[in-house]
Amino acid sequence: MSLVVVGSVAYDGIETPHGKFDRLLGGSATYIALAASYFAPVSIVAVVGDDFDAEDARLLETHDVGLEGLERAPGKTFYWAGVYSEDLNDRKTLTTDLNVFAGFDPKLPVTYQEAPYLFLGNILPALQTRVRRQMAGARLVAGDTMNYWIRETPADLAEAIREWDVLVINDSEARMLSGEYQLRRAAEKILAMGPRNLIVKRGEYGAVLFRKDGYWATPGFLLEKVHDPTGAGDSFAGGFMGFLARAGADPEDGKAMRQAVIYGSVMGSFCCEEFGVRRLAELSRGEIDARYREFRAITEF
Amino acid sequence: MSLVVVGSVAYDGIETPHGKFDRLLGGSATYIALAASYFAPVSIVAVVGDDFDAEDARLLETHDVGLEGLERAPGKTFYWAGVYSEDLNDRKTLTTDLNVFAGFDPKLPVTYQEAPYLFLGNILPALQTRVRRQMAGARLVAGDTMNYWIRETPADLAEAIREWDVLVINDSEARMLSGEYQLRRAAEKILAMGPRNLIVKRGEYGAVLFRKDGYWATPGFLLEKVHDPTGAGDSFAGGFMGFLARAGADPEDGKAMRQAVIYGSVMGSFCCEEFGVRRLAELSRGEIDARYREFRAITEF
Repeated sequence: MSLVVVGSVAYDGIETPHGKFDRLLGGSATYIALAASYFAPVSIVAVVGDDFDAEDARLLETHDVGLEGLERAPGKTFYWAGVYSEDLNDRKTLTTDLNVFAGFDPKLPVTYQEAPYLFLGNILPALQTRVRRQMAGARLVAGDTMNYWIRETPADLAEAIREWDVLVINDSEARMLSGEYQLRRAAEKILAMGPRNLIVKRGEYGAVLFRKDGYWATPGFLLEKVHDPTGAGDSFAGGFMGFLARAGADPEDGKAMRQAVIYGSVMGSFCCEEFGVRRLAELSRGEIDARYREFRAITEF
Repeated sequence: MSLVVVGSVAYDGIETPHGKFDRLLGGSATYIALAASYFAPVSIVAVVGDDFDAEDARLLETHDVGLEGLERAPGKTFYWAGVYSEDLNDRKTLTTDLNVFAGFDPKLPVTYQEAPYLFLGNILPALQTRVRRQMAGARLVAGDTMNYWIRETPADLAEAIREWDVLVINDSEARMLSGEYQLRRAAEKILAMGPRNLIVKRGEYGAVLFRKDGYWATPGFLLEKVHDPTGAGDSFAGGFMGFLARAGADPEDGKAMRQAVIYGSVMGSFCCEEFGVRRLAELSRGEIDARYREFRAITEF
């Protein structure tokens, strides 16, 4: 079944101990859509400027990512640059030029409106709600947010996530959103805000799925090489959501949620192996399924 | 099969956001032995001062912990005091009075020397080696160490761990010992130093088992209440080693190692629920096995 992804398409300047590259194709919608494209038909809603490279559009098209909702606006594409610490655990933002993304007003093509799966990448919560309501009949709606919206627009964010089936955030966001340090208590409060499923991403330490009936967890995949963690969380979201769309899963299906978390972890782990979307762009289903089986082998006892 | 544990017996003064207690029975040998006592016969080698409470000896005896190797020396028992941060992730040491532990010279009773399992708690590496050589016929030898010995006595430590089957340390110690940040590379270097199995404890994030043929991982158990993390790592070691002793496992048995890591995680998680050894002292096999099954339920997909 098909999936719509709303988010950013950007150019990134990234420096890690393994190299330095500028104007790499990035942005949440890009990572989510590329990761999901290995599982199900996916279309994006995003905005780029007139500097957007035809080659980058082609890369998305070769993965069958629908671009009807990719608006081209006068001006420059969202640009972000940052530098990572030696151990890759911290990063410092050097530049954030929102450019055309500052006025992003997601317009859902009519052909998208019947898609059963919707992932709302990290944008203004009020915009997430507007898109969500245009897809009132969706079978499963998931979304992401960030510390900035938790702090600056808490009421809009509460209104947004109340209407989601799955909230996908990281552990520091979960703590900030709930005001609780203990993850189980944090999860309890967040589930009470509306979403039936909460996924807490813990970076190299894996992820946890919380539901009213309990929790489930996976450790992280230990990579031999990590060149660039940019986009790992979005790739997780893409693998997670792509699997659910392929399976035609509904929000109550706990088993599908657990398997989706593993596929999310698989895609997040691949993402880190090369700069930008390089690794995500060249994967095969065989590699993906092999790493899924590896997850089983490294966790079974 | 029976297990010998070498380490410290101490009194601890502990303050966490959940309370403050002084002169709680503690020390590595205490936690390891109590946790292991639910699985196999265990005896300790340690030293206490003339202030050691008969009630504390009784607590160990009611768990059938062999005390023939518990030396009583003139002076005071090892005393440690510390205070934990609000989120329990950091702690500040307020007092370390080694007292009789400063001159600890482990003497292995003759009746211990045939025990097939030996766990060397965190003491001077040269002493660990001396004890290890007195049990040359042991089926499986495991041990722990700490940042202080990695820095101050690297040659003695290298000599010690070369003769161990399992090294049980935490992630920062693994990084320090190997000089590598990436855990897989760190593990490769440590395995090359001798031990056939390396367990890396990651606190609330779980644990990883490394062997020449690959790795295996478990997430942490998410507790609803964490009152005091003191001794969790030692309780892990006790559950881990106790299970191996009960199973009669040898160091090549990868499946037993994985199950032992889960039992270690189970005992570490229980330990945190109350101050000091309180929770460890009152467990039942039923509770332990139930949590082991919970680990399966929260990781299966």
